[in-house]
Order: sequence, then structure tokens, then C-alpha cells
Amino acid sequence: MNKEEKKLTSIMTKQAEDIRKLLIKVVSKNGGHLASNLGVVELTLGIHEVFNSPKDKIIFDVGHQSYVHKILTDRKEKFETIRKKGGVGPFTDPMESEYDAFIGGHAGTALSAGCGIAKANPDSKVIIVIGDASICNGHSFEALNNMNEDAKNIIVILNDNEMSIDKNVGAFSNFLNRIISSNAYKGLRREIRSIVNHGRIGGRITRTIERAEKSVRQFLAPLSISEMLGFKFFGMIDGHNIEQILDCLKKVKNEVGPCFVHVKTQKGKGYVFAEENCGKFHGISPFDVVTGEVIQKKKTYSSIVEKTIVELGEKDLTIHCISAGMTKSVGFGTFFEKFPNRSKDVGISEGHAITYCAGLAISNKNPYVGIYSTFIQRGFSQLIHDVGLQKLSVKFLIDRAGIVGEDGKTHNGLYDIALFLTVPNMMLFAPTTGFELKEILEATTNIKDKSIMIRYPREEIFEYEFKDKFQIGKWREAIVGKDTLIIAAGSMFQEILRIKEELKEEGIEPTIVSSASLRPYDEEYIEENFKKYKNIFILEEGLSENGFINQIIKYCNKNNIFKKINGIGIEECLIPHGSRDELMREYGLRGEKLMEKIKVVINAHK
Amino acid sequence: MNKEEKKLTSIMTKQAEDIRKLLIKVVSKNGGHLASNLGVVELTLGIHEVFNSPKDKIIFDVGHQSYVHKILTDRKEKFETIRKKGGVGPFTDPMESEYDAFIGGHAGTALSAGCGIAKANPDSKVIIVIGDASICNGHSFEALNNMNEDAKNIIVILNDNEMSIDKNVGAFSNFLNRIISSNAYKGLRREIRSIVNHGRIGGRITRTIERAEKSVRQFLAPLSISEMLGFKFFGMIDGHNIEQILDCLKKVKNEVGPCFVHVKTQKGKGYVFAEENCGKFHGISPFDVVTGEVIQKKKTYSSIVEKTIVELGEKDLTIHCISAGMTKSVGFGTFFEKFPNRSKDVGISEGHAITYCAGLAISNKNPYVGIYSTFIQRGFSQLIHDVGLQKLSVKFLIDRAGIVGEDGKTHNGLYDIALFLTVPNMMLFAPTTGFELKEILEATTNIKDKSIMIRYPREEIFEYEFKDKFQIGKWREAIVGKDTLIIAAGSMFQEILRIKEELKEEGIEPTIVSSASLRPYDEEYIEENFKKYKNIFILEEGLSENGFINQIIKYCNKNNIFKKINGIGIEECLIPHGSRDELMREYGLRGEKLMEKIKVVINAHK
Repeated sequence: MNKEEKKLTSIMTKQAEDIRKLLIKVVSKNGGHLASNLGVVELTLGIHEVFNSPKDKIIFDVGHQSYVHKILTDRKEKFETIRKKGGVGPFTDPMESEYDAFIGGHAGTALSAGCGIAKANPDSKVIIVIGDASICNGHSFEALNNMNEDAKNIIVILNDNEMSIDKNVGAFSNFLNRIISSNAYKGLRREIRSIVNHGRIGGRITRTIERAEKSVRQFLAPLSISEMLGFKFFGMIDGHNIEQILDCLKKVKNEVGPCFVHVKTQKGKGYVFAEENCGKFHGISPFDVVTGEVIQKKKTYSSIVEKTIVELGEKDLTIHCISAGMTKSVGFGTFFEKFPNRSKDVGISEGHAITYCAGLAISNKNPYVGIYSTFIQRGFSQLIHDVGLQKLSVKFLIDRAGIVGEDGKTHNGLYDIALFLTVPNMMLFAPTTGFELKEILEATTNIKDKSIMIRYPREEIFEYEFKDKFQIGKWREAIVGKDTLIIAAGSMFQEILRIKEELKEEGIEPTIVSSASLRPYDEEYIEENFKKYKNIFILEEGLSENGFINQIIKYCNKNNIFKKINGIGIEECLIPHGSRDELMREYGLRGEKLMEKIKVVINAHK
Repeated sequence: MNKEEKKLTSIMTKQAEDIRKLLIKVVSKNGGHLASNLGVVELTLGIHEVFNSPKDKIIFDVGHQSYVHKILTDRKEKFETIRKKGGVGPFTDPMESEYDAFIGGHAGTALSAGCGIAKANPDSKVIIVIGDASICNGHSFEALNNMNEDAKNIIVILNDNEMSIDKNVGAFSNFLNRIISSNAYKGLRREIRSIVNHGRIGGRITRTIERAEKSVRQFLAPLSISEMLGFKFFGMIDGHNIEQILDCLKKVKNEVGPCFVHVKTQKGKGYVFAEENCGKFHGISPFDVVTGEVIQKKKTYSSIVEKTIVELGEKDLTIHCISAGMTKSVGFGTFFEKFPNRSKDVGISEGHAITYCAGLAISNKNPYVGIYSTFIQRGFSQLIHDVGLQKLSVKFLIDRAGIVGEDGKTHNGLYDIALFLTVPNMMLFAPTTGFELKEILEATTNIKDKSIMIRYPREEIFEYEFKDKFQIGKWREAIVGKDTLIIAAGSMFQEILRIKEELKEEGIEPTIVSSASLRPYDEEYIEENFKKYKNIFILEEGLSENGFINQIIKYCNKNNIFKKINGIGIEECLIPHGSRDELMREYGLRGEKLMEKIKVVINAHK
């Protein structure tokens, strides 16, 4: 290392230190992805030192590990606003900055996008940073499989921290680990070659060894998945050694690719609590920097799933629980501990998860799959082809439905109702209270001829005591009022109850109905009641373009109920990040604006 | 080989001959998948000889190569009805036979389903037959990656014919081919070992060679993707050598797995035309056995795409065409020949295809992706996340929309309208004539701020001369009538014109409107005209549950047009196989039944 290089390394070491401090400070306040960002500080510094963004295109797969990149480009000043409404976004977004080459949010998209971007920008380098969990996703694999001559300017950097959100699963990730040990063999190769070159043995033996050497070269080279797929392979690099990183990236920069750089990083590096418990610090709520403890814990709908699914699983030994890299978050933690033989985390492989469940279901098992609403999009084909068309019964527990808050536009669960409505043989539920979620789980567990979808928000549990028990296909009146009928699905039930008093002050005393049964819906209720009211509202926390509201409008038209149906749902797909409370209010699903929407209709109709 | 084995082999050879004759005879009449089935005759005979179906579960990925299996189980007698309405189905289907362990149709589902079935049936062997194109799909990869200790009873049989529908693409398939050559190395290993064992060399050299041997063992073993992922590997087997097949399968049967058997087969084996042109004979219409020529060729909508996309591509050098293993079928053949540098076939990787297009689009290219309606389901997440949320312009040419006919329920294109309607920033078109398809392609090619979806059926081109030119968002009146208004999207326009005279005989003379613009739809037309008519019909060849009809009903309700909207669409998801004509008629989209549906409404309203 010459003097200049030494100086650079020392400057960058200091930078790394400062960035870590900033990361810990801001994430402890705002919540967010900490462990993964602490792990890529030096790597990101190195990338920005060697490459010339935005001419060179840097793409972070998922984008949760792009905080350092954001700090190093044009978002340092406002980094304290990350995940806040109007502030820096949680993932990468070309609409936020020209330094973000592609949107991030879902796993496995970066390699595919990178292929397209590399093809269209042959004079730029395209640097894709991807984690060891994401690269095991089917989407990543399809891209790797196609990263051929088009992609001479692609550099894939595998950020290998041996961790996805939960512990990384699958044979492919084991294989990745073996790449490391293969380096040990390189020394042995050199030794064989030296023996052959020194000519200390002759005749048949030399020829055999020569052939062995050739075969070893031929067959060892493609040992790594990367070389196997036609990459030039670089690594294993210590992701916290700035010198090594710079050395390697400078070399790679001058290669004609595609190149594959294997970097070993430690999740949580530099913050002891995150190093020791990087699962907890993957995506974390605001926490105390000194103790590492999360400041506020809410009781969520996932916790009801957690408890109920174990109760059901104790009685019904055919119940299996499947998760796709999110076991604890979807509330399957206890079930997995108690019934390991009926539990499976398939990693970030939603499509596989669903067809695996179809395989269980066709064999008379009772499979439950827990997935966030936004990720169910990945398994949509499987939902139709393997579950729907075979009329199998798989139970879908759709967590984080609706507005998710700080995780922003890629993570909002807006599409699930519209999607599931297009699938044959499917029942849909949006429980309006915590207890109702439990009731629905219990009421549907023995259904064998239909699949069940239950969606619930990322929200503290709301409770309301109904007079009667939950029944499939029946709606429940909570309050009987006059003139106005408000049908509320899922979370919208609590929203409407919360503005009840304010509505009353305006002279509006509606009948309020909990419509947790989205399909089948309560036809009898519609027939008996819709004609009685002057104003009818249907509320859902989902895309109003194509969801539950539409189903009811269609039913009414078909059955000659020619009443105006005022639908209140989500009309905008690009809902950004912010607190759930702020966004619910801004998009008219809570408080003042929700009231306003209702008032306007009723006043116009007086 | 003992006497008994010899006898068995000779019987099976005769059986193979008979089966091939039957296959050629029936497929030449009914159309269907020929080449792939001719390739697996001996393999399928072997599987059924060694394993005990239905206790052991045989799963064919895709299922197009399951004809021999069908003949060997319970469908020999009615095999002549394959693909005919009411006859044997085109793929595997547990609703058709207990010998079909899982549904087939889409690629890449068998391994996932097999994992679930193996887990649920530990006392059965689960035999999965998968082709070399399918195994490169992301879904397959996710399953392979998860095929761990749960799957001790799984036997994966790779039917390697080096072909998907078009020539197999991707690095992974190259890699599969290398497995073959690795066998050559086994001999070399034996040689090294013999040298070491004979102790003809000593000291450091021996130790080095011993270490080399150990390393070779360690590192060569996981050379094949199968062993890499934790399988026991068997092969390469000659898929037309019954003796080899039986030997191998008997061995594999007694192993604790998962096992992976690599079988080399020749597509089209035994029928010279199919051997020479297996692409043509993959899925083929009825043909002349003597000449190998297809009997009847229709001019389809794909042929208009073929011509128009080249014209557009000549003028606009930013146009790229992307296909997912279906280049010729979607009409991209000529474009690929003329502009290879702007063409890409990514194989059966729809998700990758779409995100690749998003990468091109964000780099100011103008990408077109051609996909069958049924397969777009695989890229739905990418459609929302990578295209929609970034407001990119990708052009989706959705072929085989609606009822596909002989390919049956897994291949019907029923969901595309509902799906695309849920995606932000998307324009949807269903051209009603061949010329209109061309007009839409031309009118939309320069749109940069929205994505475009154009859907058309597997149907002979229909033409009708409109007075005015096509405009985005405008519907066109073809015939002005009275009392009744019929809005027809896509193929339904020709269907309604075809029964015009019969309707007239009944005293029904409707206004007939072509509504190729599904989104944006013609609000002005609705506002001006809906109130004028006594009866309004909207016709679409898509799922009526959640499609275009619903959009219009919703618009009307919102805008206080309280008219009955009579929607005629597809109400049943499980539409089986049969000719398109038969199915269109049976499901009320053509002829008599369509007329009946209209008449009933009008007469009730007189």
C-alpha cells in the first residue's frame, strides 16, 4: 500500500465510523433496517469510491441495505427523516434520487432489472448488491440463468452475511458456503502443478496427473454457482476490510464481465446488540441505544394468529404451518417450536410455499401459509393453477394487509382482495376485531372444499363486543341507526366506530355493520336492508378499483337494487412511507377526512 | 441379463412400438404434444414397471409428456379422445384419474408439489418427471433449494432432451449438459486411485495425490447441480434403452433419497418428421402422418403482431422484443431474425422477462413482451412492483386470451383483465378485429408514461370495416339500432355480429359497439348513450367476476347512471378442454346460447 492508498484507507475508516454512529442514532429513533446496513458500511464506501454513480448504475436488491448508499449520495442532510412521512424512503427509489438506479422492496428483482439496465447502458458499469437470502429466490435464479453475453458490464456483489430475516434456509445457501472452502483447494492445485512442472515423476504417472490437473481445472472452476453460470469469480473478500474491498473492486472494474464478487460481511457490525441478535435488529422499531431494547411493543393481530394456530394445531394433527422467510413475523414462532415436524420455512420462495401447501392439501393435510399481503403477489400463479383449479383447501393468513406505514409503497398490501377475488373456490375474510380473527380461524379450520384467505392489518388489536357469534357469510350489526348504512370490512370497522361521536354531532347516526365475510358476502343482509336506507357506504382498506366494494355494486346491479353505493377504499396505488396513522388520515381512511367523505355524500343527499 | 429379464425387455420393446404407433395415429388426428411423448415412451414404461402407482405418486411437470402414462394407466381405451371435449385431458389431472398425483399445465410446479406430497406420504415413493427447460424455471429452483430432509422419498427424473418449446436457453441448461461430461472423469478417478493403491510412487507425491483424490472426491461430487443440492445422483441413462432404465430405477427405488436420475431422451423418437423438427411437433395441430404436414393453417392474431412489430421496430430503434420460451408462437419470429440485438428469449422465466423489460424501460428503451395470458400470472408481482410502481412503459402482448380450446383448464386466459386492472398506470385493450389490433399497436407504441396491455384470442382473424379510425379511449358504433345497446370487447364483437340476423328475426335490432379500449373506457359514450337504451349488455371473453363489466357497472353507479347492466362473460373458472368453438358455444359466448342470454333479458323487459 503506498502513501496515498494508506491515507485513503484511513479517511474511509473514519467515514465508516461516523456512518455507523449516524445509522445507530437515526434508526434507534425512526426504526428501520439496522443490522444489514451496519454490515455493508465499508462495502458501500468502497463501491462509491471505485465507481462513478449515477453514470454507473448501483442497484440494491430489496434495498433495505441502501441506507449507507443514501448517506453517501444526496440524502445525508435529510437522513434523519428516513421512513418519516415526506422524508427519505425506506428502500431505493429512482423517484427519490438519480443515484437509485431501480426500485427496491421485494427480493430478487435486482438481477433481472440489472440485465435490462446493462443491456441498455453498455457504457456504464451495473453494480448489483444482493444478499445471500435474496439470491436463493426463484426470480434471482431466473436472472442468473439469463445473465449471458448481454451483461458484460454487470458486477454482482454477493453480500453474504449468512442471514436472511430469519436464518437462511435451503441447500443453495449451504452450497454458497462451500465456495469459501474451495479457495483452500487452490493451494493444492498449485502444489500439483509444481510437481508436474518439476518433472520429478515421469511417464504414465505424469500424464495421469496432467490429466487430473486439467480435469480439476475444468471441474473445479465451475464449482461456484457464479462461475458455473458463466461469471468471472472474485472473492472471498472480507467486507469490513477497506483495503481488500478497494483492491478487488478496482480489479473488477477493468474486467469484461459478468463478474461475481463474493463478500463476507457481519450483520450488525459495530453495534454489540445488533451483532448478537441480528434477527431482532433486521427491521426494528425505535429502540434504546444503551440497552438495545425496543421502546414500545404493541399487541398485534399476528399475536392472535400465534396463539390460535397452536390451539388448532394441538387438536388437528393434519395442520402444517408454512412460512416464506417470515416465521416469527407472521406469528408462527410458537407453532414451529412445538410442532417442528409440521412446520416449514421455505425462505423467500412464496411460489414454492403455495404449491408445497397444495401438495400437502391434496394429500389430506390442512396447510396454513403465513405471508405478508405484498408478498402474496409472488405466488399468484400458484394460487390459481395449483390451489384454485384443483379446488384444494389451503389457508392463507395474509398479514400486513392495507397500509403498512414506514415500509412504504412497495410494501403496502393493497392488492390482495382484488387478487384473491379472481381465484376460483376461495373464501375471503377481513376480521374487524381481534376476537373475530380468532373466531374466523376457528370457523374455517375444518373447511376442506374451499381455500380460505384471512387478511388483517399491521395494527394494534381492536376489540368490540358483538351481541351474536360470528358466522361465515353473515355480517353483524354493531349499532342500529337511521338513514345511513355503513358496511365496514376489516380495519375500517374500528375507523368508523372511532368517529361515531363526531358524526353524531353532525346529526349523522348511521347503522354500522361489520362485514368480515367478503366472500361469501351476506346477500340476505343486502336484500333486506339496502332498500331501507337513504345512504349506503361500503368501506374497505384495499384498492377500491377492483375489490370488495365492486363485488357488492355488481351484486346490487344484478339483483335490481339500484341504489347508489358509496365506496370508500384506497384509490391511489403509490402510497408512500410514513406512520400508519398519518397515512390512514391523509388517504381518507381515518379521522377528519373519512368523516368529510361521509358528510359530503349525506349532505348532498339531504 | 437373466432369461426372465430378457423376456421382460422384449415384451416392453414391443409395447413401446405399439404405443408409438398409437401416439402418432391419435395426435395426427387430434393435434397435441407429440415429440415430447415419443421421447418418453421407454422411460414411462420403466417407471410403471418398477413403481406401484397410485400408491407411489407419479408427477409429470407441465404434464404435456404424460400421454404414455395415460395409456399405461386407466385411459388406454379412450386415448383416442385426448384433447376432445369430454375426452381424455391434455395434461395430468387428479380429477381425471387417481394415477395423476397432481395437476399439470404450467412449468415448474411439480417439484414443489412433490415436496408437499412426499412429506404427507412418507410410505410412498414420489417420482417427478421434469424436462430440462422446466427445471431452469425459478419455481423449480425454489423447490430444488428446499428439497431437503423432508424429501427422502423423492425421485426426480430429469428428462433431458435439450429442448424446450423453442431451443432451451440459459446458462443453467449449459451446465446441465456438463454433467454428462463429468462422467468421463470417473474413469480418470479410478486410474488415480489405482496408481495410489499400487504404491508405485512414494513420499510427498503420494500424499499430494491422496489429497488431490480426496479433494477431487469432495469437489467433483457436488459438481452436478443435483448433488450440489443434496441429491444422490444417478445417470446418465439412455432413455431409449429399456434395460438401462430398469436397472437404474430398481436401484433408485431402494435408496433413501432424495435421488436425481438424469435421463437423456430424443424428442420425436421413432417418427422421422418429429425427430427432425421437434419444435414443430412439440404441440401440433392435426397433421398428415405420411408427409408430416399440418392439415389446416389459420391466419391468427399472432400473425398481425408478427408483421406490425417488425414495421414498428424498423422505425423505432428503441423497441426490444422479449419472449419467455415462446418466440415463434407469440409472433416474434421475424423480429428476432431481423433484430437479434434487440431480441431476447429468456426461457420459461416470465417474472424475469417482465423485470428485464422494466430495466430496459427505465433506461428509455421501448420493450415489448409477448406472453400467453395464462402465463402472465407468473409475472404478476413484477408487473406491480417493477413496472406499475415505477410508472414505466412496458408493452404487454397477451396472446391466447380467453378460451384456448384443446389445451384446457390450466391454459385458459381468463384472469388477465382482472389482474391488469389491479395494476397502477396501465392501459388495457381488447381489439375486436385484426386491423384494430394493428391500429392499437401503432397508436400505443409512442406512449411513454403508461404501460400497455393488449389481449387477443387464439382465433382466426376477424375483420370489420369501421367508418372511423381507432382512438384510445373511444368506442366505435358498428351498427346503430334501437332499444338495446350491446357493448362488445375483443372477440365478443365478432360473436355478436354473427348472430345479428337471428336477433333481427326475433325483433331485436341492437346498437352494436366495439369497445376495444377497456381502460381508459369511453366515459363520454356511456354518459351520452346509456340512458337512451332500454337494455344494455356488456360482453367480454374474460372472468365476469372481476373484469371489464364490473368496471363499467362501478362507473355507472358512481355517476348516478342507475341502469341495469347485463354482463355476459365467463362465469366458470374450470372450463375444460375441447375445441374453441364447442366451448364458446357451451359457455354461452357464441351462437344459440349467447342469443338465448340476450333474448331472455329483452323479453323479460318488454
